[in-house]
Amino acid sequence: MPFAEKKLIERIRRLAPEGRSLVKGIGDDCAVLRVPPGHDLLVTTDFTIEKVHFRRDWHPPEWVGRRCLTRGLSDIAAMGGEPRAAFLSLAVAGDVPQKWVNRFLKGLLTLAQEFKVPLAGGDTAQSITGIQADIVVVGSVPRGKAILRSGAKPGEGIYVTGELGGSAANLARLAKSKRESQRRSQREFQPGSQRAGGKVSLPEPRVAVGQILLRRGLASAMIDLSDGLSTDLGHICQESGVGAEIEADAIPRAWLGTEKNKVALDLALHGGDDYELLFTSPLSVPPKIAGVRVTRIGRTLRSSGMRSGVTLIGIDIDGKRQSLKAAGWEHFKGNS
Amino acid sequence: MPFAEKKLIERIRRLAPEGRSLVKGIGDDCAVLRVPPGHDLLVTTDFTIEKVHFRRDWHPPEWVGRRCLTRGLSDIAAMGGEPRAAFLSLAVAGDVPQKWVNRFLKGLLTLAQEFKVPLAGGDTAQSITGIQADIVVVGSVPRGKAILRSGAKPGEGIYVTGELGGSAANLARLAKSKRESQRRSQREFQPGSQRAGGKVSLPEPRVAVGQILLRRGLASAMIDLSDGLSTDLGHICQESGVGAEIEADAIPRAWLGTEKNKVALDLALHGGDDYELLFTSPLSVPPKIAGVRVTRIGRTLRSSGMRSGVTLIGIDIDGKRQSLKAAGWEHFKGNS
Repeated sequence: MPFAEKKLIERIRRLAPEGRSLVKGIGDDCAVLRVPPGHDLLVTTDFTIEKVHFRRDWHPPEWVGRRCLTRGLSDIAAMGGEPRAAFLSLAVAGDVPQKWVNRFLKGLLTLAQEFKVPLAGGDTAQSITGIQADIVVVGSVPRGKAILRSGAKPGEGIYVTGELGGSAANLARLAKSKRESQRRSQREFQPGSQRAGGKVSLPEPRVAVGQILLRRGLASAMIDLSDGLSTDLGHICQESGVGAEIEADAIPRAWLGTEKNKVALDLALHGGDDYELLFTSPLSVPPKIAGVRVTRIGRTLRSSGMRSGVTLIGIDIDGKRQSLKAAGWEHFKGNS
Repeated sequence: MPFAEKKLIERIRRLAPEGRSLVKGIGDDCAVLRVPPGHDLLVTTDFTIEKVHFRRDWHPPEWVGRRCLTRGLSDIAAMGGEPRAAFLSLAVAGDVPQKWVNRFLKGLLTLAQEFKVPLAGGDTAQSITGIQADIVVVGSVPRGKAILRSGAKPGEGIYVTGELGGSAANLARLAKSKRESQRRSQREFQPGSQRAGGKVSLPEPRVAVGQILLRRGLASAMIDLSDGLSTDLGHICQESGVGAEIEADAIPRAWLGTEKNKVALDLALHGGDDYELLFTSPLSVPPKIAGVRVTRIGRTLRSSGMRSGVTLIGIDIDGKRQSLKAAGWEHFKGNS
């Protein structure tokens, strides 16, 4: 059955979880939210566009929906904030099956429920081709306490949560299997080959870790790893006016599924979609926060002047020092 | 020159007006806003999609940008709220000229400046085809005071601001002239025929009127006219559980440019993009608020039961009573 806009709005209205911050949700000109007194507001928006951020023939719709909201929740986590409400704008072409949209919503709303975030509104439209989604998440932090990218000073520790490179490794493996199955399908029909997509997983947005870092005053600057460590550490350096030095051996690399290998260093340095937190701290940080591993991977330096603080120095596996260039996530630009 | 994503972000960052509610704007994981104590938050999102909401060969880019933000500000106005910040997510295909994007931004930011609303963030992406924009506007109202669609009671007056049908009439005229010039251009080259698009205008979002209605407690329910009077009055009836009766002769119809005619009744009843306010009131409402004409066009009734309050009754020009069906704005579905 093709996508029907009215049905979609009814479905969202029926399924959307309620939340304590929501005075009025879907069904008026605006949503009305109530944030506790003495709090600042956080707002973040993120596009999810077919053939740019996902491929319908590679990714299960639940994964696309979950990733869509993960991006927003992860941005709130990176400020040390509490998510309060989400808004979904969704444009879908007439030839997209209703089932795809239902499964996309299921993925998104399952995560919303896990974090008790109400889907409070948004917009729907018929698109000319494919699927375009824009997620907005509104959150809050105690007044003046938001952890910005700009608070790092020279001589602080650089930390990451969890393990890096897992999403990029999964995507690379998925791309390989899809290409192989495409070659095979020219010779024979392969039922079940679509299921390879089911293995693509995503880390939980680190909302609890972010809030604990804020409450304990542990992080001087923070960002979430959506574009890759090299790019996102560059943003902290740029906004804080510091340099950085990270040790290759210290970077916590994700395990490759059930295999006994870890992902390649390149994927941990430059792979995207990790949604771990990267932060700086002048204090000693415990190795586990809210059940999540926290690893010190380097330290901030005085800005090297010439390139106004964006220079990164990497110590590679051979023990040599080298400049680490930002080589962030380019989605499907190199893969499609 | 084709669209360049990085340049766009820099351009927005440079041009975006600052606002008193903005603690941290573009350049972090989230924007940080500070709303006065004792206020509720308002959030609205609206898509603007090429070939659905506008046509690049019909509408000047400044108009598209202005309309994009007008939709959001008008939603805030319809709650009696004050706009605090806007967020733009913009996906643009590689073949869209940079100049188009610059002129689109100019239209949007000119309106933002008029209303002192900072552009506080958003997202940019490469789109596969055409232009997709999603505008988010965050506003505030004194706690518990937002004017909802659901507050109307039977026996109240129904009012509109300004004049109706002007945007639909302009669009119809534009469509006619474009079709004629297309026919002519098959015979001869017509320089300047593109300029017809420049005549398409939009009303100001009625933010000041909405705030005065809220302060004086004049409106029991309110909505903005984006989809057309018949559709939007239907929403108030549905959410409030009332019926409505409007008088055709009382509906303030827009003038047709410099001509001495008014737009057809059908356009005033069903045309979209008016961005006037439609509200109900148990009190006597002055004929002018914040310099804008306010007209009583009918009254609310007890819901007629059978169709749970969505029945509309129109008295047509011949003096007969007839049921008025919602026949809202279908954008280009009937025009392209």
